[in-house]
Amino acid sequence: MFEQCVRNVYEKTPLIHCITNYVTVNDVANTLLACGGSPIMADDEEDAVEITSICHGLVINIGTLNQRTIPAMFSTGKRANELSHPVILDPVGAGASKLRTDVTFKLLEEVKFSVIRGNISEIKTVSQGTGTTKGVDADAGDAVTENNLDETITWAKQLSQKTGAVIVITGAIDIVTDANKAYVIRNGHSMMAKVSGTGCMLTAIIAAYCAANPDHHLEAAAAAVSLFGLAGELAYDKLVKNDAGPSSYRTYLIDAISKIDAATLKGGMKIETR
Amino acid sequence: MFEQCVRNVYEKTPLIHCITNYVTVNDVANTLLACGGSPIMADDEEDAVEITSICHGLVINIGTLNQRTIPAMFSTGKRANELSHPVILDPVGAGASKLRTDVTFKLLEEVKFSVIRGNISEIKTVSQGTGTTKGVDADAGDAVTENNLDETITWAKQLSQKTGAVIVITGAIDIVTDANKAYVIRNGHSMMAKVSGTGCMLTAIIAAYCAANPDHHLEAAAAAVSLFGLAGELAYDKLVKNDAGPSSYRTYLIDAISKIDAATLKGGMKIETR
Amino acid sequence: MFEQCVRNVYEKTPLIHCITNYVTVNDVANTLLACGGSPIMADDEEDAVEITSICHGLVINIGTLNQRTIPAMFSTGKRANELSHPVILDPVGAGASKLRTDVTFKLLEEVKFSVIRGNISEIKTVSQGTGTTKGVDADAGDAVTENNLDETITWAKQLSQKTGAVIVITGAIDIVTDANKAYVIRNGHSMMAKVSGTGCMLTAIIAAYCAANPDHHLEAAAAAVSLFGLAGELAYDKLVKNDAGPSSYRTYLIDAISKIDAATLKGGMKIETR
Repeated sequence: MFEQCVRNVYEKTPLIHCITNYVTVNDVANTLLACGGSPIMADDEEDAVEITSICHGLVINIGTLNQRTIPAMFSTGKRANELSHPVILDPVGAGASKLRTDVTFKLLEEVKFSVIRGNISEIKTVSQGTGTTKGVDADAGDAVTENNLDETITWAKQLSQKTGAVIVITGAIDIVTDANKAYVIRNGHSMMAKVSGTGCMLTAIIAAYCAANPDHHLEAAAAAVSLFGLAGELAYDKLVKNDAGPSSYRTYLIDAISKIDAATLKGGMKIETR
Repeated sequence: MFEQCVRNVYEKTPLIHCITNYVTVNDVANTLLACGGSPIMADDEEDAVEITSICHGLVINIGTLNQRTIPAMFSTGKRANELSHPVILDPVGAGASKLRTDVTFKLLEEVKFSVIRGNISEIKTVSQGTGTTKGVDADAGDAVTENNLDETITWAKQLSQKTGAVIVITGAIDIVTDANKAYVIRNGHSMMAKVSGTGCMLTAIIAAYCAANPDHHLEAAAAAVSLFGLAGELAYDKLVKNDAGPSSYRTYLIDAISKIDAATLKGGMKIETR
Repeated sequence: MFEQCVRNVYEKTPLIHCITNYVTVNDVANTLLACGGSPIMADDEEDAVEITSICHGLVINIGTLNQRTIPAMFSTGKRANELSHPVILDPVGAGASKLRTDVTFKLLEEVKFSVIRGNISEIKTVSQGTGTTKGVDADAGDAVTENNLDETITWAKQLSQKTGAVIVITGAIDIVTDANKAYVIRNGHSMMAKVSGTGCMLTAIIAAYCAANPDHHLEAAAAAVSLFGLAGELAYDKLVKNDAGPSSYRTYLIDAISKIDAATLKGGMKIETR
């Protein structure tokens, strides 16, 4: 299944419309190209609603939301729903400000999401209505550990039940779950936290994977999460070899994404079901 | 002539004002520095009209156009016209949405462009009023091939006649033409399509070349197109040598641009006249 | 003192809120991570005022200011002042347009800045009300040289006295001064001028250093300036070794920032007091 997910992306070259933040947008675009998809960005409301109709999936990332782009997120999300395109939410910084939290909840009311991906603090905010988000990174006190893993999966499954979306919580341990079945993924490397926007990049990859695998969003999201983590591992090997730093690592990461095919993913996945 | 174009850029360090999209803007800035020019970005209408007056050329790239920046494109374009600065249009995604197509046509009515650069689908939209643009990449069915090359050049010359602009169509085969004379350029590498924003970067280089070579826009644009393609070839050699991927390739591409002088360009150009 | 400044940044991981331009924002984010801080960007007025309250310092960079973000700069600056967070001003292009100059002066009236960092043309504009800024780079005629160094320090000290801010003038020779004491720093490399946004990156590092060293803004700023210059020197060594160009150099620069600890800085500082 996971291997087929990879092959489908390369075969279909899904075109992903991103309404995303201007901090990491270039990395998001290049990551989509690297994973076998294709990016298009449009955030003017009039433009975005029309652009999304020629695409295969939509990312809504609230990282630098503003009064001009917020209405575009709603209109475009609804249009993508009408077209049955997968819509992926990245609630960057939900819990860190009232505007971000409010927009996240309003989006959840008015747009149907296929996947919601965030760090644990952001997803806790989505789940509980209040968060301990301290910025765009997860609060250390929230971290998913072996000790709280089962408990976290339990409420994440409930959140999936409630929202109808696959829930993806990323961190040292990644969780990808729907209402019934959770994948726990242990790919990745701590160095990824030293690159701005790794969460945004992964969200875009998930969108490409869901667009190319419309009947298997859970497995598509799990494949994307594992692939991205594996790319982080391969990039770390190169970092060590070259005695390089975080900016080189970003480059190696995107390079590595482009080199992972179905067989490489199968060989490198660290995944279990719960 | 082409060699003199290169030397003039390095001698004059043209300052290029870019109203461009936020996806690839950083690569555009660094590409301008790499080719011997200098960038400045300003898209607030009040600011942009004044900033353009201290520059030597203007890029209008509609990649992430919005209601705030569209008026700035018109006012600044007209101001640059008054100052006789070369103005270069990059109609990103023209044909993919009504807003992009409409703004492109209105710009063509109200601003005089020295060069219009796009992929074949975008330029077909500019030429025919209707396009088959499927996003920000050219539609495969539109591709310029050896079979339709002469026919494409014929209508591109007519488009140049009609608009008064040098027309640049980029793809596997590049065409740079005015109403009378066309250059066909076969530099470049398919890997360039795996980097977001290569079109935007090239448009900015063309602006620097036209600004530094005010009496020879056709040759200046041809030199810029060939130089960029040659940089893509040199970067590919480095990619192979280092077993690298698309993100490294982007870095090698900008590095290579900075290393091409007049003699290197002369030695590497693959250009013919039609 | 300087070594302690470095250690404090790594110990406290200051979260820096940046209202900054969209050209170099990604490099700013990754530079903050590389130096031991953490970035968050928010420029919607409602969002920004709240986000700044969870941060430890604020950067206001006017590089692509617009009618939407200008009010956010004022409200957020005032809020950061109430919270006693250090606020750092980067008056990009002040003197190049009336809007940039006017906003700079109005910010100086309404917000208290801990540090103002710019190139010599920008800081001359701040000091004299009129500038010779020719874009976002310093005018060659303004350059700080050994001949005008003492004179420049004299008026920079006066500007610090008048504004209450540490004044940082960067170029071939860097000056970091308050009303009484000036540091002259000769770290750095001319290659840094071939990378877009080195000024913006440095401003963000200064913010992280001031946030982590609240009682020693002068020394914190001097440590940041010297560290960034030293990173530029180390990156240049790598450029030569790899026969690379400006895009690789940008990567090496951010890599190098991440590798400079207190001892490396102490060993590499080229600093004197005047």
